[in-house]
Amino acid sequence: MRQASHSPIGVFDSGVGGLTVLKSLMEHLPHESTVYLGDTARVPYGTKSGEVVTRYSLKNAEFLLERGIKLLVVACNTASSVALPALEAALPVPVVGVIGPGAQAALARTQGGGVGVIGTQGTIRSGAYQRALEAQDPRVRVKARACPLFVPLAEEGWTTGDVPMLTAREYLGEFARDGVDTLVLGCTHYPLLKGVIQEVVGPRVALVDSAEATAQAVVTLLEGLDLLAPATSTPSHAYFVTDVPERFTEVGARFLGRPIASAEQVDLKF
Amino acid sequence: MRQASHSPIGVFDSGVGGLTVLKSLMEHLPHESTVYLGDTARVPYGTKSGEVVTRYSLKNAEFLLERGIKLLVVACNTASSVALPALEAALPVPVVGVIGPGAQAALARTQGGGVGVIGTQGTIRSGAYQRALEAQDPRVRVKARACPLFVPLAEEGWTTGDVPMLTAREYLGEFARDGVDTLVLGCTHYPLLKGVIQEVVGPRVALVDSAEATAQAVVTLLEGLDLLAPATSTPSHAYFVTDVPERFTEVGARFLGRPIASAEQVDLKF
Repeated sequence: MRQASHSPIGVFDSGVGGLTVLKSLMEHLPHESTVYLGDTARVPYGTKSGEVVTRYSLKNAEFLLERGIKLLVVACNTASSVALPALEAALPVPVVGVIGPGAQAALARTQGGGVGVIGTQGTIRSGAYQRALEAQDPRVRVKARACPLFVPLAEEGWTTGDVPMLTAREYLGEFARDGVDTLVLGCTHYPLLKGVIQEVVGPRVALVDSAEATAQAVVTLLEGLDLLAPATSTPSHAYFVTDVPERFTEVGARFLGRPIASAEQVDLKF
Repeated sequence: MRQASHSPIGVFDSGVGGLTVLKSLMEHLPHESTVYLGDTARVPYGTKSGEVVTRYSLKNAEFLLERGIKLLVVACNTASSVALPALEAALPVPVVGVIGPGAQAALARTQGGGVGVIGTQGTIRSGAYQRALEAQDPRVRVKARACPLFVPLAEEGWTTGDVPMLTAREYLGEFARDGVDTLVLGCTHYPLLKGVIQEVVGPRVALVDSAEATAQAVVTLLEGLDLLAPATSTPSHAYFVTDVPERFTEVGARFLGRPIASAEQVDLKF
């Protein structure tokens, strides 16, 4: 398959969360067309096994490939943690996950005080962030913790107040005590809880969100491959979901920071 | 298809929660064999559309039918809320959901002070409990509320302490104020949070769990159809899941109240 510079960038996630990554992509690459797939019929990925998440990821990628994408962005941290090798082996286009860029951004920020990583059970159990950090700096001290209630809290819109604050204290108390100077928000939903997370870990801990770092990695890669869309291009943005689109367009607009006119439901059987 | 009394009872749920229904069935019907399917690769159902939950339910039922079941129990409240008509139309065996029996149990308990119903977004949005209550007693006053954080709290094992207590106050404060005398726990996970729920709504509100009522409905139905297993039968119990079985056997034992020796992973593509 030959990729052309005017082909779209494909992005998939288990649901709406990956729209924060898409948002960063649109900011950095305003001329690129995109195709987004949210696997809302099988969301969440963070509680499921690596085997099942890999199977779903390959099917999502196959769907996007059929739409002629020139590059695939895996916006979901869990899928990036467990399915990247399988996706890279199977796909004829470059694949960018959020883990490598997120780890790199954390290492650029830390002053040697240790890096914390929070994410879903699937992401933390996989050890992918831990490996990526240690591969880039063997001396880094890493502390990782799964925070399963953060996603449902963010989806429920409970991002301030006692419940998220006490939940954050339970999960993050050890980071505040043990002293890390940088904390990777290793799940696309967590930036919505930035306020309480920052309050619990204290103002000296830098919070790193992979979306921004991932968008920068995509820019570098497309430049290197000479696949950037021409500055004269008028971009188009298409959205697909596997469950009914109503809730996605409504909630998704909050994540994306702009309205989503419509999303098309596709019946992927897997 | 002809059902025989020695055939097993089929039970499906989106995951482990339905094991509380299976537990009640085993207590009431100690001679019956059972086949349980937990759709752990697609859990939860409570946040998904009726259309998608119905599609999954039909596939789950098809799998159980192939195992020669004589009756299907839909242990998941969300699936019972949205998929029962489709299941009844498609299946050659009787189908029992948890909504009708749960509503009946609530009406047997209320003293006319109003019935509250709590459940997932899918269950409450469907209006199934509300309709079942009003069909059985047109004068009943019903108040329903979705409590999306209760399932992740129960799965995280946070069933006592400040976070579940404050969450329950947020969701259930209106029940305490408006006065219902009976509250249906319309999700298989909620009995795990019985302590905090009872504390918030007060000791005068009776909590109704559908599992017990559903098991009684199955007894009555099998008796009526002359399909009860003979008292000489040695029952067998089989467990199937759609994601890897490790977490299911471990967490499931808590829900079932007895060890689950093994569960077999099946790859249902839908």
